[in-house]
Amino acid sequence: MKKKLEIDSHSIVEARERIDAFVHWTPLMRSSAINKLAGCELIFKCENFQKVGAFKARGAANAVLKLQPSQREKGVATHSSGNHAAALARAASAAGIPAYIVMPATAPEIKKRAVREYGGLIFECEPNLQAREEGLRSVVSTYGAVFIPPYDHWDVIEGQATCAYEIVESGLSLDVLMTPVGGGGLLSGTALATHFFSPETKVIGAEPEGADDAQKSFLAGKRIPLQQANSIADGLLTSLGEINFAIISRYVTDILTVSDDEIIAAMKLIYERMKLVVEPSCAVPLAVVLRNKSRFQGQQVGIILSGGNVDLARLPFR
Amino acid sequence: MKKKLEIDSHSIVEARERIDAFVHWTPLMRSSAINKLAGCELIFKCENFQKVGAFKARGAANAVLKLQPSQREKGVATHSSGNHAAALARAASAAGIPAYIVMPATAPEIKKRAVREYGGLIFECEPNLQAREEGLRSVVSTYGAVFIPPYDHWDVIEGQATCAYEIVESGLSLDVLMTPVGGGGLLSGTALATHFFSPETKVIGAEPEGADDAQKSFLAGKRIPLQQANSIADGLLTSLGEINFAIISRYVTDILTVSDDEIIAAMKLIYERMKLVVEPSCAVPLAVVLRNKSRFQGQQVGIILSGGNVDLARLPFR
Repeated sequence: MKKKLEIDSHSIVEARERIDAFVHWTPLMRSSAINKLAGCELIFKCENFQKVGAFKARGAANAVLKLQPSQREKGVATHSSGNHAAALARAASAAGIPAYIVMPATAPEIKKRAVREYGGLIFECEPNLQAREEGLRSVVSTYGAVFIPPYDHWDVIEGQATCAYEIVESGLSLDVLMTPVGGGGLLSGTALATHFFSPETKVIGAEPEGADDAQKSFLAGKRIPLQQANSIADGLLTSLGEINFAIISRYVTDILTVSDDEIIAAMKLIYERMKLVVEPSCAVPLAVVLRNKSRFQGQQVGIILSGGNVDLARLPFR
Repeated sequence: MKKKLEIDSHSIVEARERIDAFVHWTPLMRSSAINKLAGCELIFKCENFQKVGAFKARGAANAVLKLQPSQREKGVATHSSGNHAAALARAASAAGIPAYIVMPATAPEIKKRAVREYGGLIFECEPNLQAREEGLRSVVSTYGAVFIPPYDHWDVIEGQATCAYEIVESGLSLDVLMTPVGGGGLLSGTALATHFFSPETKVIGAEPEGADDAQKSFLAGKRIPLQQANSIADGLLTSLGEINFAIISRYVTDILTVSDDEIIAAMKLIYERMKLVVEPSCAVPLAVVLRNKSRFQGQQVGIILSGGNVDLARLPFR
């Protein structure tokens, strides 16, 4: 790997201590009914119970708390319409500093409300990447705020790594640990924590077929940005970040894909059998296990349930 | 109370030990967001995570395990289209005895499947109470099976009492403990356990306005059967049982009602803020708290989330 690793085992332990007052140590859950279906022993790490309803609370808190005092007072900024926006707004609010969030004017009202509830200041822009980046530059130059990107950032990755660290700390020794992959923040953090604390565990990324740039990049050995994305897993429609790719290409065993129908079926199982509300992205790893039963047979497989922020009026169940 | 109590503190502790291998000791959960809305400190006991997805697993297991060997070998029977049917089928299967379940032919396929999956034998009947009772009599006389009713039965009530016992055992001292009330199995068991183990805690029943026979009976001091029931809380459309009423009228502080709109709003909060799948009946106590904020202000209020078996294709969210 060309990039020098800016994270080590000590820094992950320190990150977990740093964010302790800001995030939950989330519980593990099991389902004998789903184990029976899958033919292996599944352990689910419930980040849908995390603050702001997603693992993103970890990375945002870690990045905000690692700012220098001189940076901190001017606040933080990002462009996002998803969980990272809410997570950054909340982390900033808890640290007593402003958060400037550039969001497309077309973002769902519920996402805007979440950011506002956590005290974030919303700057609306046109719904395209160029407008978002311009909006961000403007906010950063006007207020001197520090840009905290959603995944392509060492402190964010270090924060996400605390989730797998908690799993290892619970005393499990997994054969496999699986997370969904979009920008790669959670997968790269998980891969590093697992490399340091449980090197015998294989880390696998789970991706929708309709947004499979991570698998393509992983197989090609270079980043292949997403040309077009089409999947119900709306949290995973972004291209792999640069740092994330560097970590993933070195420390991840495989990236496997599934169809939207398989994602919906896995999501329904989690609702029906585990009584958990999860977003579609969150169900992708279970869909991968169910599609590749022989590969995981009899193994102990950890799955990070990444988040539970879903539009309840539009659940895909029939 | 005219009826002699057939349950005491020892028998509840014994029941908890008896059913230990058959049910989960369910977790408690809290939500700071909902506490803020409610103005009190809420502690939720997650029986939606219970085996068969509802507290009914407790009473059914206790009743089955208390049978005499001579009764046991002939099996158990009930008429039900709800959670009790699945709970009894599962308890019987775990004890290695047959369960005969009389169900209306019109019952949803998903309910029949649940009973079949747990090894229950289904006898279909016309969808009216008379046909159900006839079906039950026929099964009982043909097979010699023991009828285990869904709530109006000492062993079932004793089993349901183990849920509040677990709350007390967790070291909480609640000001109020609230459950939904339909037939009254959970409420009467909760009232007894609380009377024995935490007498300073007030027990309150929560009921839909469209099926308010428990409130009417409680206020009149005599059982007033439900004339017609109309509520989204489909688990609570039954009249209070005789034993249940006797216990409730003595050991319960109050019964409060809410509208279906209030139930749906509370249910949505539990999905959105707690990421839990619950059935409408399960949301009735939270709806009661939110309707009566001043009454509970600043108090520590326990709520038993009774179950999570809901038709995901027909969630009432818009």
